[in-house]
Amino acid sequence: MDVVVPFDATEPKTRLSAVLDDRERREFAESMCRDVLDSVRAAGGEPTVLATDSVEMDAPVAVDDRPLSAAVNDRLADADGPLAVVMADLALATPEALGRVFDADGDVVLVAGRGGGTNVIVSRIPDFRVDYHGVSIADHRKRALDVGVTPTEVDSYALATDVDEPEDLVEVLLHGEGRVTEWLRERGFEPAATDGRVRASRD
Amino acid sequence: MDVVVPFDATEPKTRLSAVLDDRERREFAESMCRDVLDSVRAAGGEPTVLATDSVEMDAPVAVDDRPLSAAVNDRLADADGPLAVVMADLALATPEALGRVFDADGDVVLVAGRGGGTNVIVSRIPDFRVDYHGVSIADHRKRALDVGVTPTEVDSYALATDVDEPEDLVEVLLHGEGRVTEWLRERGFEPAATDGRVRASRD
Repeated sequence: MDVVVPFDATEPKTRLSAVLDDRERREFAESMCRDVLDSVRAAGGEPTVLATDSVEMDAPVAVDDRPLSAAVNDRLADADGPLAVVMADLALATPEALGRVFDADGDVVLVAGRGGGTNVIVSRIPDFRVDYHGVSIADHRKRALDVGVTPTEVDSYALATDVDEPEDLVEVLLHGEGRVTEWLRERGFEPAATDGRVRASRD
Repeated sequence: MDVVVPFDATEPKTRLSAVLDDRERREFAESMCRDVLDSVRAAGGEPTVLATDSVEMDAPVAVDDRPLSAAVNDRLADADGPLAVVMADLALATPEALGRVFDADGDVVLVAGRGGGTNVIVSRIPDFRVDYHGVSIADHRKRALDVGVTPTEVDSYALATDVDEPEDLVEVLLHGEGRVTEWLRERGFEPAATDGRVRASRD
């Protein structure tokens, strides 16, 4: 399965600026992307990084500085066969979870992200297009129906957990196994209990 | 499978007090619990509500006003066979997701909740005990290993999503299909895009 992994190489992970400085955010984002590429390959996918600017990755990199949806839609339009889109910030993505998605039946397969996002898509039809703006999971369900397809949804916490905000870091610490989890630990992050859910804190 | 569904009948869902008043929180919590009971039964489970006070539910109710872990551990100690513990606030719990857990191999099966919690447990051994305080998923992994069992973990967003805080309501609106989703819609909640993730807002 050909897999596109969109990566913001320009201003990665700005919503983490309260806890990581510019250089750290870049390292963190690249580290997550490398973990995702490993999991994609282990699940049988052939990844291409679709980056907003040049970046060094252990996979082919295609640079497209347009907004995310336009860049991904060009890839979908050009695809000869099934194409998957896997977000680069899925720090908990395992080969098993991605394998469940790649193996799922259906012309359009969707995996919801927390807060209304769409973290993984597989399209096996020529005319499905994405729109990542707003409540994208609802839009993608509707777009699939609009082209005559009932979307298959895969229920995965590992893939629903994109890492955008400081509160997400604890998920990486508790459940991650890749280099990005190690990266966080090395920088002093650890789980800390609060009144409600556990958050990540730094020394 | 016997299934215990712990329910706080005393002060349910206090962390939702910014968006729901006392009476609404009680209705909301009871409505979620009823949805969970439906899904448990549809997945082949036989639920008992383990409540801190008397409450009317369409299932047997056992009242135990001790802290959650003590009450659940008494049930585990008394169990004749496999016992599952399913939290009452899993508004997205589907029969399919619970079925994956009930059918999973292993003497101890765990499903992580967001923020370090443990939302579903199956124990098929007599000596596993719970501790829901703090980072319970990490504690439960360790406790399983301490009694010689490698825990099986089931990867489910539907079951990872317990509804505790205002930011969780949007997940119910976007993915839920039960009476609690209808309850929220009737009270004017709808998904609203923000700068980051989509949240629920009320007219």
